[in-house]
Amino acid sequence: MTILQEEPAIEPMADAPTPLDGEGFRRAGYALIDWIAEYRATVGQRAVAHHCEPGSIRAMLPPRAPQCGEAMNTILGDLDRVVMPGIVHWQHPGWFAYFPANSSFESILGELASAGLGVQGMMWSTSPACTELETHVLDWLVHALGLPERFLSSGAGGGVLQDTASSAVLVTMVAARERFTGFRSDLRGLGAWEEKARSRSVVVYTSDQAHSSVEKAARIAGIGKEFVRLIPCDRQGAMRADLLAAQMELDRAQGHLPAFVCASVGTTGVNAIDPVAEIAAVCAAMRDPESGATPWLHVDAAMSGTAALCEEFRFVTMGAEHADSWCFNPHKWMPVNFDCDVLWIADRAELVRALSVLPEYLRNTATESGKVIDYRDWQIPLGRRFRALKLWFVLRSFGIEALAAMVRGHVAMAQSLAISVRANEKLLLVTEPALNLVAIAHRDGDEATQRLIDAVNRSGSCFVSHCRFHGQLVLRVSIGALATTQLHVDTLQRLLEHETAS
Amino acid sequence: MTILQEEPAIEPMADAPTPLDGEGFRRAGYALIDWIAEYRATVGQRAVAHHCEPGSIRAMLPPRAPQCGEAMNTILGDLDRVVMPGIVHWQHPGWFAYFPANSSFESILGELASAGLGVQGMMWSTSPACTELETHVLDWLVHALGLPERFLSSGAGGGVLQDTASSAVLVTMVAARERFTGFRSDLRGLGAWEEKARSRSVVVYTSDQAHSSVEKAARIAGIGKEFVRLIPCDRQGAMRADLLAAQMELDRAQGHLPAFVCASVGTTGVNAIDPVAEIAAVCAAMRDPESGATPWLHVDAAMSGTAALCEEFRFVTMGAEHADSWCFNPHKWMPVNFDCDVLWIADRAELVRALSVLPEYLRNTATESGKVIDYRDWQIPLGRRFRALKLWFVLRSFGIEALAAMVRGHVAMAQSLAISVRANEKLLLVTEPALNLVAIAHRDGDEATQRLIDAVNRSGSCFVSHCRFHGQLVLRVSIGALATTQLHVDTLQRLLEHETAS
Repeated sequence: MTILQEEPAIEPMADAPTPLDGEGFRRAGYALIDWIAEYRATVGQRAVAHHCEPGSIRAMLPPRAPQCGEAMNTILGDLDRVVMPGIVHWQHPGWFAYFPANSSFESILGELASAGLGVQGMMWSTSPACTELETHVLDWLVHALGLPERFLSSGAGGGVLQDTASSAVLVTMVAARERFTGFRSDLRGLGAWEEKARSRSVVVYTSDQAHSSVEKAARIAGIGKEFVRLIPCDRQGAMRADLLAAQMELDRAQGHLPAFVCASVGTTGVNAIDPVAEIAAVCAAMRDPESGATPWLHVDAAMSGTAALCEEFRFVTMGAEHADSWCFNPHKWMPVNFDCDVLWIADRAELVRALSVLPEYLRNTATESGKVIDYRDWQIPLGRRFRALKLWFVLRSFGIEALAAMVRGHVAMAQSLAISVRANEKLLLVTEPALNLVAIAHRDGDEATQRLIDAVNRSGSCFVSHCRFHGQLVLRVSIGALATTQLHVDTLQRLLEHETAS
Repeated sequence: MTILQEEPAIEPMADAPTPLDGEGFRRAGYALIDWIAEYRATVGQRAVAHHCEPGSIRAMLPPRAPQCGEAMNTILGDLDRVVMPGIVHWQHPGWFAYFPANSSFESILGELASAGLGVQGMMWSTSPACTELETHVLDWLVHALGLPERFLSSGAGGGVLQDTASSAVLVTMVAARERFTGFRSDLRGLGAWEEKARSRSVVVYTSDQAHSSVEKAARIAGIGKEFVRLIPCDRQGAMRADLLAAQMELDRAQGHLPAFVCASVGTTGVNAIDPVAEIAAVCAAMRDPESGATPWLHVDAAMSGTAALCEEFRFVTMGAEHADSWCFNPHKWMPVNFDCDVLWIADRAELVRALSVLPEYLRNTATESGKVIDYRDWQIPLGRRFRALKLWFVLRSFGIEALAAMVRGHVAMAQSLAISVRANEKLLLVTEPALNLVAIAHRDGDEATQRLIDAVNRSGSCFVSHCRFHGQLVLRVSIGALATTQLHVDTLQRLLEHETAS
């Protein structure tokens, strides 16, 4: 298949002063807006990914930064000359790899407005709009996704934007750790928080299909890889709640502290949905006899959370009313450009206590009044940009119905692909697709599956990634790019049929 | 002083479709580019900060997200109606509070290009240009700042973009922790990494003037607040290396592990410069007899690192040749919009080992070849956006000379302010300003200083923040906004003179 590699050219413009003045910014800004519009209009004609040698991009760059300013015209032109050859087109309509990373026009404008304003939202007082808009649109989303009211900011809970679900799991795990050590590890560290610390570890739980960020968080938080229990899954890839209970009992019998569970609503591999309500019941039954605390239940619904916009897919929020925290990434399926992870907390007090530092130079009357939220105490960094703008732009320009329609469309495309896989005697549907991810294997085994993956990706018209599930190599089709239509899924389907025709 | 509150109006445009198509994006994009240009042209006529009641922004927003899409014209119009009343103008030429958060036109365009491309740079293979451009421009900056060659990517070291210096100190502290436990705490956690863990803690050191992120990182990493030693400072606010050595000896005598030192090149309060070379000598002398490891020396030069663009201010890089890591924030004084922190590592192996997770779904031939950098292993999150673009745009459009000239200008303005303070018999220069930050107190004491701060901030024409230094309240003037000229500093000087005239 031949792919047109026509580059959208930067419109010629008279040289603007360097550095740019307002007029130069306008002209360069218009040109860049045009370039983005043109790129998006033609991205489907490009090869999704193409061969690139390590070092080939650097080889086009001079060894030193320029002493004198260069014309913005030249710089923008280098987007085509230098950058494009090393771009994998995540916005391509044939993007079926990893996860959809939708960067809609609306969210691009929101990011642009945020950069234009250039304010810091670390505290309410440093730009009240930055904090209040964020709190407000995250309340909007509680309603739009049908999440429990305990996540609304009007009660003890509330939402906050993190960069990614990795950070969300880290900060909630730290709060959970402190819940179980009575904030003594916050003070004395995990090595010395109590006399018998050596024989008593904080333990975290997730499934063997969960995202790698859970293990990473446990290592960063000083809990250690060995105290991350990877609970086995059922045939569909969902965590076995009974095995979770058994492991927790075992750990407690050994004197350890079962402190944190991360349930996956949509595992990274095959998008399996953990039984959150059952897991919540296990947590409730594990109340610590000394402190009365129950293990913190965090739900990671990074990609699939967006499906809750549709009433018929509200199974993704089942059990959320028992969760201590719940997160999803609008920067995946909901078309908000990276980075934008929403984390809701049922009771913000522990999180805020675990992450608060109030040096003199940040003291202010608004904070001391207790009437405002200071989001710096809900996240790892101190600084934060105005990320709520892009979420606000997307929710308003699309409206909930259009976003829900997008989700429905992608799920229907996935189901159509699943039907064609079932009808193909060479192919196997590895799990039943609950939503927009189709897990496929070749019946002849891993080598044949790998050949299939390579053939699809060589085509240039679509791009898939892989995982292993119960030992088997899986061709993983994640359908969710904003530009994807049934035609693009049909192209993939034809490729699969062509490659499996004998 | 009356401040004009004229709003830059969004140009009327015909309603674009909702959600936006390419043509709608172009029209809205042009309008937003114009709005930003107009905002920046007039920001100096606004009050830097103004009174805003908690809840007043939220009160303008509807209780639910719209079901149907709204016109982008309306949404952009709400930037003026809803957002502006809650904005503190960090881009104002009279911005002397906290730190400069420069969001230059060039960096706005870089952020826009990044959002337009919408790629993920978590691994080299997911968009080679994203990784290679980052590695390359960070090598450029090693040369431009006169940093040691050990930070170049050509050797064992290299640079990586983090969101903030808070994350930089956390990831390096985790690497240092593992250096000292032989990666056993990575595996078994800080509670159980060795038999005698309970009596043997990892200890971190910084000065009592350091940024709060050091304490926060130690708490997140499970080390605990009590094992953060805040070393006293000299009269100028610089860490006392002799007291650091004494504290380390004491900790080691008690069986603890002095593992990590964060030196501040520019403390948050009064921008004091720690003696990095002396601190490095203390670290070298503290070689652990068992493992042969020396405490990890991290340098946080968040704001002041940019000064190294000028040869005459290269004192900010003194001792860097002995540091394990060195970071600064182009999103502060160098005009790259938030977020953009550069972290250089002398030997990347420990950092990468401490942060690596390689699940099956991320395996790829490029990673396995060992010839590429996968930045996901250099940071907390997995996902990452194409942040190097904005740094590239700024370095090229300004050129190193113009950036250095900007730094020189700000330092000269700070020195002129210092001269006027010295000449004012009611005022006290709390420390000698080394660069762009002037620390001022009223000779009549804290109440008089507070009245001075309030008067300056009520003026609307400039905005300062405060700190405490050796117990004294300080009016803190941080000069570094891209728009600031001598005229704006003169305005501040006149305000101080007016308020102290008897």
